[in-house]
Amino acid sequence: MTRRLTTPAGNFFEDFGLGQVFEHGVPRTITQGDVALYTGITGSRFSLYCAHPVATACGFKDTPIDNFLVFHLAFGKTVNDISLNAVANLGYAEVQFFEACYPGDTLFVSSEVIGLKENSNGKNGVVYVKSVAVNQSDKQVVSWIRWVMVEKREQGLSNQTATIPSYLAQVDNPSDLIPLEANFGSWKPSYSDNQFTFDDIEVNDEIFHRDGMTINDSDHSVATRLYQNNARVHFDGNMMENERQSQRLVYGGQIISICRSLSYTGLSNAVWLCGINGGTHANPSYAGDTIYSHSVILDKQDICGRNDIGLVRIRTFGIKNNSPDTIGELYAENNGRLKYHQDVVLDLDYWVAMIKR
Amino acid sequence: MTRRLTTPAGNFFEDFGLGQVFEHGVPRTITQGDVALYTGITGSRFSLYCAHPVATACGFKDTPIDNFLVFHLAFGKTVNDISLNAVANLGYAEVQFFEACYPGDTLFVSSEVIGLKENSNGKNGVVYVKSVAVNQSDKQVVSWIRWVMVEKREQGLSNQTATIPSYLAQVDNPSDLIPLEANFGSWKPSYSDNQFTFDDIEVNDEIFHRDGMTINDSDHSVATRLYQNNARVHFDGNMMENERQSQRLVYGGQIISICRSLSYTGLSNAVWLCGINGGTHANPSYAGDTIYSHSVILDKQDICGRNDIGLVRIRTFGIKNNSPDTIGELYAENNGRLKYHQDVVLDLDYWVAMIKR
Amino acid sequence: MTRRLTTPAGNFFEDFGLGQVFEHGVPRTITQGDVALYTGITGSRFSLYCAHPVATACGFKDTPIDNFLVFHLAFGKTVNDISLNAVANLGYAEVQFFEACYPGDTLFVSSEVIGLKENSNGKNGVVYVKSVAVNQSDKQVVSWIRWVMVEKREQGLSNQTATIPSYLAQVDNPSDLIPLEANFGSWKPSYSDNQFTFDDIEVNDEIFHRDGMTINDSDHSVATRLYQNNARVHFDGNMMENERQSQRLVYGGQIISICRSLSYTGLSNAVWLCGINGGTHANPSYAGDTIYSHSVILDKQDICGRNDIGLVRIRTFGIKNNSPDTIGELYAENNGRLKYHQDVVLDLDYWVAMIKR
Repeated sequence: MTRRLTTPAGNFFEDFGLGQVFEHGVPRTITQGDVALYTGITGSRFSLYCAHPVATACGFKDTPIDNFLVFHLAFGKTVNDISLNAVANLGYAEVQFFEACYPGDTLFVSSEVIGLKENSNGKNGVVYVKSVAVNQSDKQVVSWIRWVMVEKREQGLSNQTATIPSYLAQVDNPSDLIPLEANFGSWKPSYSDNQFTFDDIEVNDEIFHRDGMTINDSDHSVATRLYQNNARVHFDGNMMENERQSQRLVYGGQIISICRSLSYTGLSNAVWLCGINGGTHANPSYAGDTIYSHSVILDKQDICGRNDIGLVRIRTFGIKNNSPDTIGELYAENNGRLKYHQDVVLDLDYWVAMIKR
Repeated sequence: MTRRLTTPAGNFFEDFGLGQVFEHGVPRTITQGDVALYTGITGSRFSLYCAHPVATACGFKDTPIDNFLVFHLAFGKTVNDISLNAVANLGYAEVQFFEACYPGDTLFVSSEVIGLKENSNGKNGVVYVKSVAVNQSDKQVVSWIRWVMVEKREQGLSNQTATIPSYLAQVDNPSDLIPLEANFGSWKPSYSDNQFTFDDIEVNDEIFHRDGMTINDSDHSVATRLYQNNARVHFDGNMMENERQSQRLVYGGQIISICRSLSYTGLSNAVWLCGINGGTHANPSYAGDTIYSHSVILDKQDICGRNDIGLVRIRTFGIKNNSPDTIGELYAENNGRLKYHQDVVLDLDYWVAMIKR
Repeated sequence: MTRRLTTPAGNFFEDFGLGQVFEHGVPRTITQGDVALYTGITGSRFSLYCAHPVATACGFKDTPIDNFLVFHLAFGKTVNDISLNAVANLGYAEVQFFEACYPGDTLFVSSEVIGLKENSNGKNGVVYVKSVAVNQSDKQVVSWIRWVMVEKREQGLSNQTATIPSYLAQVDNPSDLIPLEANFGSWKPSYSDNQFTFDDIEVNDEIFHRDGMTINDSDHSVATRLYQNNARVHFDGNMMENERQSQRLVYGGQIISICRSLSYTGLSNAVWLCGINGGTHANPSYAGDTIYSHSVILDKQDICGRNDIGLVRIRTFGIKNNSPDTIGELYAENNGRLKYHQDVVLDLDYWVAMIKR
């Protein structure tokens, strides 16, 4: 007698309940191996994350893990429970980094359902979750809100009341999100190629980061597997041939990291990611696309009592196979809703600590 | 005066003698770098191998190295002496893991010729070897038997007596192949995404692991180079253009690891690989193929005195660009010989320890 | 008011002055993660760099970092200041390795301009630099001279006096470039697959290393990103489509490492790279090329008082999609200038320490 066991297939819209908490699988220790591979797939050059003497001179007990890498690793854990049946990742907000991570630290990730909204098509709905990663000492490392459109198991409307959580347009008090141990007073300009400091930039400044990076199929697959993100759309080329896109999608986090890496040319002194106010993957990316990056300074703030760093709010756009010089308008606004140019692949709004002169 | 030195070109059938022992080159220390890269090329999610607190809670002194990775690293060492002139890797058996490996451990690998059989075509013959990897403390880590068809240096028959070793259809006493330090009593269901436990499955159960993974050219090249396996068929695209296959072959071990990684969806509680009873690479794989995985439960056994884990014998098939739903029969049997469907790329029979409820 | 900040765009010929010193950005700690990735993208099998017990038996305090990897990492740091606007990397010389590197060591790299020569076309000129990498203890690890043809910001001739530095046709006293701690007296032939030793080879011997390695797009991108080498020609496929080559160029260092890795078959006992006398990337390489390697023994020397190793000067050629058997002449000489066959991609002249019998 043969039974065919039902393979776990992720949660559908009906499976989520307000207040429900998921303890996600696959706790993950971050190692120097992960860091090397992250450098290999992004080309990141921020020296705080690749030079032990620089990190310790800045007060860190070891070379910290880049918060972008921390985010991808933590995010990856949530996919299996939250977004395996996602039609679209609609956005995220309030990404806050509370604690520096070091090689050997382990992330345990959980998510709580904080909002639910059926779509009127009866086919899917939006699930809002707040996710938290804690380390092996049970300290919060990072938390974030995201919302995804998830398929229903069965079509039809339940007419349940929609609950849409409120979230902040920007992270509150980003200066609280700088590690207590961090002190950049001994920073040498050569560590970051003698580029613009906090003092050199002004609100509304724009920077085109010039370099482009072409995505290879293996690059983005390796990235996504490293994060143990198991969304099929990134891996199963055979399945995707029959989908609208006809090929595997690049994980949006890889686009974020490429844009961050490219932004070194111009923003090399943006040393610490405090938080992400919001992010949108405006259009899909595929292997073969060349990604360019363009930033706008949204805000800058001194930090009371500190001369080493200040806070800068940056909006970075990712653009594929095109440049801000030739693309025209990156987006148009219509009733508060953004309509992006088809070559815009990322719109990321985040707070960093930036070296002062 | 110029001499052209003869480059070592591997052993031919005539070079092997019964009882001959090879101390293979390139001893290899396994590091956290290897582990990260292994995750990057396979997407493996079994938390015992990626979460230090999980590993130590289970009695291990450090995060153990996945036995599949141990096997590929050890196997890679044998290629230069045994199978550089292989026409085909016919099979392996009695793969037994005696000792957990940890980052920093080093493998030293040797092989003994235990069987020889000329083929009647006068062109090649079958070489049977037993290979053993010991660690830096001279403790056996893994041993296995494999047989390969190897070309003759010169055609013709020597009519030597064939010696075919006996080997077991399955590994004896797999419970002896669980590390003494291992205790899974504190395992939390969330570590493995709350999936089926030992108690949930029955003999003859079938599981289609649903996810697919497309092989990129760089993925499998990186894997095979990481294992320092120097078989030309995996690397030399220029040479392979003139061969029957017209392209580089994916190393069979990469297929094994992809199938194991995919099997997490359904068998996430199959935490420890005790041994491999046998394995067959039924058809070749190439870059661009999407691999799916399907398992059958062949046996399950309680372990005397243990409530944390039980033993499960699994047969996992790898299928390319097709699924068990549409493929029809995976194989046909004819006089004890299996004839596989052309889309079946792997038939692997192995014992694991599986978490009990 | 929006300002468009000028993104740093590298130095042009006019920006360089004789005696000018650059402290390059992005100091870099080398980790076991880098080593694993280097193995994954090159397939290197020299056991001194992958087997801790072998390294410590040879007197090293830990597994040393392969000097080829050290060179690529150090070289990568110089790109942003020196060769971002390079038309061509013309050559390098006097590469000397003074100190063994270990996991955890950090490279700080600086360069001094030692020569300048305008080209008569008024479009570009040659910049000669001497670069030095020191470790966290301020000890010199490696130094080298290189010269690059760099674009002018504005066309025209300044008619400045040309200064062309003298450099050695070969590294002086390579025996001084063997780490003091190194002693290969306990080397076992099996460590290096029982191949040719110092005693087996003679000056003028030629070795065709037989194996080929096909370059995948991701392999060479990962390599170059790992080294944080940000030359656009390696990454920006969109830009390169409009260039003469119409595709991304493979970083020359990746060709060096592939050739070195291939040379294991024949020269596995060439255990330590003392220095590189000179190197030329004779023709470009692209993803899809299969690289072969061919070596000529230029010189061999005993080292006074040592029976464990001797010095060997090797000239290794890299050849793409062709072999020394069919290529005819690798190069022709005309008035002291070499004209290479179009399939020759590398001409590398270096000193190694080689195991004696």
